[in-house]
Amino acid sequence: MIRPITKCDFELFWPTFSAIIEHQETYAFAPNMTVEQAYDLWCEQPLKTFVYEEQGEQLGSYYLKNNAAGPGSHVCNCGYMVAEQARGKGIARQLCEHSQQQAIALGFQAMQFNSVVSTNAVAVQLWKKLGFSIVGRVPKAYLHRQLGYVDTLVMYKWLID
Amino acid sequence: MIRPITKCDFELFWPTFSAIIEHQETYAFAPNMTVEQAYDLWCEQPLKTFVYEEQGEQLGSYYLKNNAAGPGSHVCNCGYMVAEQARGKGIARQLCEHSQQQAIALGFQAMQFNSVVSTNAVAVQLWKKLGFSIVGRVPKAYLHRQLGYVDTLVMYKWLID
Repeated sequence: MIRPITKCDFELFWPTFSAIIEHQETYAFAPNMTVEQAYDLWCEQPLKTFVYEEQGEQLGSYYLKNNAAGPGSHVCNCGYMVAEQARGKGIARQLCEHSQQQAIALGFQAMQFNSVVSTNAVAVQLWKKLGFSIVGRVPKAYLHRQLGYVDTLVMYKWLID
Repeated sequence: MIRPITKCDFELFWPTFSAIIEHQETYAFAPNMTVEQAYDLWCEQPLKTFVYEEQGEQLGSYYLKNNAAGPGSHVCNCGYMVAEQARGKGIARQLCEHSQQQAIALGFQAMQFNSVVSTNAVAVQLWKKLGFSIVGRVPKAYLHRQLGYVDTLVMYKWLID
């Protein structure tokens, strides 16, 4: 089930979170941040943060926040993480669909991903399937730990008709 | 001259800053923020903030900050403002050239503007002249007070060879 995250959930999710940022292949976060800094960034600064829990295991999480203020405040931004052992089971899809419903309920009209690492093919394909378009490509904006400088993509979806 | 901004400079620059955000034609900032909130956003959160002062008048300002952390930390982001009475005199150009020198001195390799309002033709043309490319166009991401929803541009320049 997907439900609002608690501090305890986040601490149980931390091994996944810290592994993802240490890999430096998908997120432009400081790879050595503490659990407290991560909790602030992922759970306190955003508008909403959810956890995907199954039989007491925290398998995924996402945040939802404003992408900009004032004249840009109709656009939201989300970030998603799924535990390595739980990939390929449609959890990211469920999280993204849930986030779009939440965004609409909160009054947002569009969702923007500012920095999808172009080599993260699984994510790019999934976001496309879920209706997001690539609207930008920033050259060498991400220093991938294995591949060196790679491009990032801006992906975007207008949520309402 | 361009020099690091002080709190007093920012307070003197506030009429310009507040007019720009109230117009809602260029910045995705809350149009009704207080001077304290603006000082925090423009001068405290960024890495560096400068003022353009001429004969005791604060005619322009810019900030420079990281655009992202960790694997994205080689890319910086800047924002520029020029007082209405001082436009067309090359101040924005001087601020942008100064910011690029600062960015290089601080070790950044690229500069990214995440949300240039597409109808802000003067800015778009100037950034192009100064070597920035349009690498993205986000549909209807900005609610322009006069024109309704308009696109925003992602502009980018690799600073070093």
